[in-house]
Amino acid sequence: MAVYTEVSDEALTAFLADYDLGGLVAFRGIAEGVENSNYSLRTGAGDFILTLYEKRVDPNDLPWFLGLMEHLARRGIVCPLPVHARDGAALRTLCGRRAAITTFLPGVWPRRVRPEHCAPLGDALAALHLAGTGYGPTRRNALGPDDWPALLAHSRPRADDVQTGLAAELDAALAHILAHWPGGLPTGHIHADLFPDNVFFLNSKLSGLIDFYFAATDILAFDIAICINAWCFEADMSLNVTKARALLHAYGARRPLSAAERAALPVLCQGAAIRFLLTRLFDWLHKPAGALVTPKDPREFLRRLRFHLAAPDEHAYGL
Amino acid sequence: MAVYTEVSDEALTAFLADYDLGGLVAFRGIAEGVENSNYSLRTGAGDFILTLYEKRVDPNDLPWFLGLMEHLARRGIVCPLPVHARDGAALRTLCGRRAAITTFLPGVWPRRVRPEHCAPLGDALAALHLAGTGYGPTRRNALGPDDWPALLAHSRPRADDVQTGLAAELDAALAHILAHWPGGLPTGHIHADLFPDNVFFLNSKLSGLIDFYFAATDILAFDIAICINAWCFEADMSLNVTKARALLHAYGARRPLSAAERAALPVLCQGAAIRFLLTRLFDWLHKPAGALVTPKDPREFLRRLRFHLAAPDEHAYGL
Repeated sequence: MAVYTEVSDEALTAFLADYDLGGLVAFRGIAEGVENSNYSLRTGAGDFILTLYEKRVDPNDLPWFLGLMEHLARRGIVCPLPVHARDGAALRTLCGRRAAITTFLPGVWPRRVRPEHCAPLGDALAALHLAGTGYGPTRRNALGPDDWPALLAHSRPRADDVQTGLAAELDAALAHILAHWPGGLPTGHIHADLFPDNVFFLNSKLSGLIDFYFAATDILAFDIAICINAWCFEADMSLNVTKARALLHAYGARRPLSAAERAALPVLCQGAAIRFLLTRLFDWLHKPAGALVTPKDPREFLRRLRFHLAAPDEHAYGL
Repeated sequence: MAVYTEVSDEALTAFLADYDLGGLVAFRGIAEGVENSNYSLRTGAGDFILTLYEKRVDPNDLPWFLGLMEHLARRGIVCPLPVHARDGAALRTLCGRRAAITTFLPGVWPRRVRPEHCAPLGDALAALHLAGTGYGPTRRNALGPDDWPALLAHSRPRADDVQTGLAAELDAALAHILAHWPGGLPTGHIHADLFPDNVFFLNSKLSGLIDFYFAATDILAFDIAICINAWCFEADMSLNVTKARALLHAYGARRPLSAAERAALPVLCQGAAIRFLLTRLFDWLHKPAGALVTPKDPREFLRRLRFHLAAPDEHAYGL
């Protein structure tokens, strides 16, 4: 839940004057998303989301993210569409932050994942990957395997404060993952953070995907591995293979997985687990005083990581 | 900013089935309000607010609050109107919490108070007090003068951790305030928490009042004193007498203040300052681990309190 930057009504009115959106009707902070400040905004033209990009987003990446969202929306993916101001620019400045208005998507994100969410998710993920083709610019994944050693190095000295033996366990796991990281798999633009709070459903149908601010150009199947971690584990950290199978089959029905992609699934899942474990561990150990957001427990992903390290092959995921 | 209780889509759908509001369209946590969980809810019937009452609200008080809102709305005060389910009840249960749906109010709360906000505020406050007449049930103010000594006693042992000498300063101030607390002033139903984030404006007009969950039956002019503390001080904690005068004159134009009410203004302002100082001090010293809400600094109200203690009479407020 997050509103880091308070926008005065004067600043907002001045900001809106650059758009053809009519007058301001309502403006409320949204208690979701942990990286940026999000407001629900109603004007004479309808409902929108106003996002102020906070310090963890590199402003140089913003044109790429907004361009990707436009590209995907034009290809039929239901995602927030950046709204252009009268001068044509979608990316602007408000209260000293880069800011953009995007369209409002109806729907509700599932607080509790059920098996029937997972096939629509897999289908939408494959559609996203196919629709990304043709968006020329690329973005290096700043949280990919090359970045994990440095991320671990920042947390290793205090990792055992979180759990005894964690530093050594992560050293060994990371060495294993990097040694087995697959080369040559199909790449493209991935969402890279498609957790349940970024996927809306309406009347049991998937109604939209949001929050593309971790998107990057990387191994497509790595996005599947992220979703398996994010959607298919129960509260006791056991894998729900019904959910994983539904996700994988629906994905494969739209974009068939190669034998190499299937075989890489365990190590990709290990990588996805360690990626979220490492950022959560960093946030846990580097929580600023007076933080607005309570850091999430990194240990949930340690338990997922152990599962994936023990998985003999892709059949562990219901393939 | 607050969402303390996550509502699953299944629980929400079952909850909505008891209302004639059509199907669920959207549901987002609102990053405002610190006592309850608030969601913006869109259904086939339009926009609403869903509130789950958290532990600081006494469930026994809820019928009184909702009844007051209905009474006020019927008398022309723009405030959230509780929505009744098919069985006639507005107060229901969701995820183990008492919960209610109320109407959505357009408008934006002023992040930065300007003098032109204060006359509409004073006028709306007087209208609220007049409209409250005729709502028969009463509610004792649980944060009134009788409650301040116990509140201070809970924080006194560690008060000097916040500021050296604070315990002694508060002892003296509270003794002074209680010795001079006025009797015989007109009473009625007061909002008791009319800070800027509870007042919406639209096109420079006041468009609604929200959050009646501290409302009580108490001295009407105490509500004015709360508003002076909440709206009329600058960031350097100096009183902006232009704002206070605008508030008081607009209030008096709708509900004239008696000589006794005017004369009591300094001590009522002292009382309002110490009331918020004491609850903030308590929250500051009793912050739970992993709290979702960062406590507000109590010292802002110490500086207001000192101003009011030094005010010779009501003329200090522009009267």
